[in-house]
Amino acid sequence: MMMSRSGARLTNSMMATMGPHLFSSATTTPRILSTASYLQNGNQVASPARNMSSWTRKRSTLALGEKEEEGGKQPVTASAGGDAKNDKEIVSYWGVSPSRISKEDGTDWKWNCFRPWETYQADMSIDLKKHHAPITFMDKMAYWTVKSLRLPTDIFFQRRFGCRAMMLETVAAVPGMVGGMLLHCKSLRRFEHSGGWIKALLEEAENERMHLMTFMEVAKPKWYERALVFAVQGVFFNAYFLGYMISPKFAHRMVGYLEEEAIHSYTEFLKELDKGNIDNVPAPAIAIDYWRLPANSTLRDVVMVVRADEAHHRDVNHFASDIHYQGRELRESPAPLGYH
Amino acid sequence: MMMSRSGARLTNSMMATMGPHLFSSATTTPRILSTASYLQNGNQVASPARNMSSWTRKRSTLALGEKEEEGGKQPVTASAGGDAKNDKEIVSYWGVSPSRISKEDGTDWKWNCFRPWETYQADMSIDLKKHHAPITFMDKMAYWTVKSLRLPTDIFFQRRFGCRAMMLETVAAVPGMVGGMLLHCKSLRRFEHSGGWIKALLEEAENERMHLMTFMEVAKPKWYERALVFAVQGVFFNAYFLGYMISPKFAHRMVGYLEEEAIHSYTEFLKELDKGNIDNVPAPAIAIDYWRLPANSTLRDVVMVVRADEAHHRDVNHFASDIHYQGRELRESPAPLGYH
Repeated sequence: MMMSRSGARLTNSMMATMGPHLFSSATTTPRILSTASYLQNGNQVASPARNMSSWTRKRSTLALGEKEEEGGKQPVTASAGGDAKNDKEIVSYWGVSPSRISKEDGTDWKWNCFRPWETYQADMSIDLKKHHAPITFMDKMAYWTVKSLRLPTDIFFQRRFGCRAMMLETVAAVPGMVGGMLLHCKSLRRFEHSGGWIKALLEEAENERMHLMTFMEVAKPKWYERALVFAVQGVFFNAYFLGYMISPKFAHRMVGYLEEEAIHSYTEFLKELDKGNIDNVPAPAIAIDYWRLPANSTLRDVVMVVRADEAHHRDVNHFASDIHYQGRELRESPAPLGYH
Repeated sequence: MMMSRSGARLTNSMMATMGPHLFSSATTTPRILSTASYLQNGNQVASPARNMSSWTRKRSTLALGEKEEEGGKQPVTASAGGDAKNDKEIVSYWGVSPSRISKEDGTDWKWNCFRPWETYQADMSIDLKKHHAPITFMDKMAYWTVKSLRLPTDIFFQRRFGCRAMMLETVAAVPGMVGGMLLHCKSLRRFEHSGGWIKALLEEAENERMHLMTFMEVAKPKWYERALVFAVQGVFFNAYFLGYMISPKFAHRMVGYLEEEAIHSYTEFLKELDKGNIDNVPAPAIAIDYWRLPANSTLRDVVMVVRADEAHHRDVNHFASDIHYQGRELRESPAPLGYH
């Protein structure tokens, strides 16, 4: 642990992110070594200061090497406020230096939106058929609200499931963020714990956003689709925000049903792929890294894991609604963190 | 890895959270064993199915054992929709089963809002004096906005720093959440990556919320303070929301200055503690676990690490503002994930 107190920003930030590797002092050494394997310089941990500066010198070229910095723009190399310093100094001006990470094969880790230790293998054993039978009036309202939204969607997209998936993920990533934010503010206002639900809902939102980041690699949105997303988000974000404030019980149930519909759509997507109506193109690089898929994976494999994710979100949201049905608050039942 | 495909929710959710432990297949076995050390049953991983059910049976007692479920309320044990099942079945009805985690000493992990692998040791080597000299008009506006907010705060709290810290953290946890949420929605609307900034800002919000969870253990809010927080959050959340939409450059700069003020307040807090005007009570259990502090730590140690956290947030926000000053977007420069 002492190594992380050396003040070297890189090691420190790595240490922080690698919390699990450091919790048990008994296994610190091998864990730090395994951490080092993510770094460009194997001796980064052994000699943080030197590697920090060597990394800092590399910083100005780093941005161009990254997926998320397309367009070849130069990275930020100067600080506001008249701090005329050279690249190396300015990059570390605020002491903020992003870590440089490599994959097991030694190549650069291309993604800033997620790290190797945030990737996972989807649990394909989850029951895709599970359905919450709407009994109460509120459940039926949630169910039919979702069903009624289905019709215009079917008419608009027809069988263009690639496009459909991409567009729907821009909506699917909203509820988790809104719910997480509202629970966060509630926790602050009431001086009370969250039971881990803030994190669980934000994890859902981020996972849905990763679906979008994946599908937009295989289906480029047209200008009118971008316009539609803009409009839909404006309406849906506010509607869900209000809905969640009025009744989280209803909001979570509705998301549960939305996810049930998503599973259906992805199953249809798979049928079209198997029929050959949609080209089973190679899986995007981001999907292969995020879900730890084999290098030769295809779009079909991606749709399979995405569908499994949606099934997990269905569970979490129906579960959350059930908790409210018990007249309890979410914080009273530990959240299913890392459930996907 | 195959073990996590067994479908046992507990192991699966552990696996997901323990991503880093699984990324390198070469080290899977020892890592899984170290994961198991967090579990009540050492053989949980070895025989997930059996332990899952044995864990499920324990579930109904779990809630009562948790810090975040004070009041001895019963956990959720029934699902809506007329599913008359017994405790064991219903708990796993949606396949959602929270993991049971133990500390190194074998005692229960009490917190749902954070896990052992999310804890860290604060970097005390950070420069507390660093200040961004306001040069541009916008910087000066941000600087004086913060300075002018200082006066009423000083008048209201006087030298009651414990109460002051608690109250201010209810505000400090808002900007990160608002910024992260807006970047999330922007990423969805524009079909573009975030550069990790969504996560970085949400990390900041969560860290500030943990400060609140800590201080509320040492300073109980009075009814009129709760009312004040309610009002202030209503105003500040919306103001910052608008401010961030109009000018993230200004918003991040302002938060940078807010953090500089926070560092000052905590330094004053320490002076009062050293003078003996404020009792240096033992550190709350949650703080000892979150910052990995020695068991005999005191309030002074807590204020020290919290102040270090604020210094890190100051860096991140000034850095973010600097990026905008370069006419670039945050996503163009990798976010300082795990920087605290």
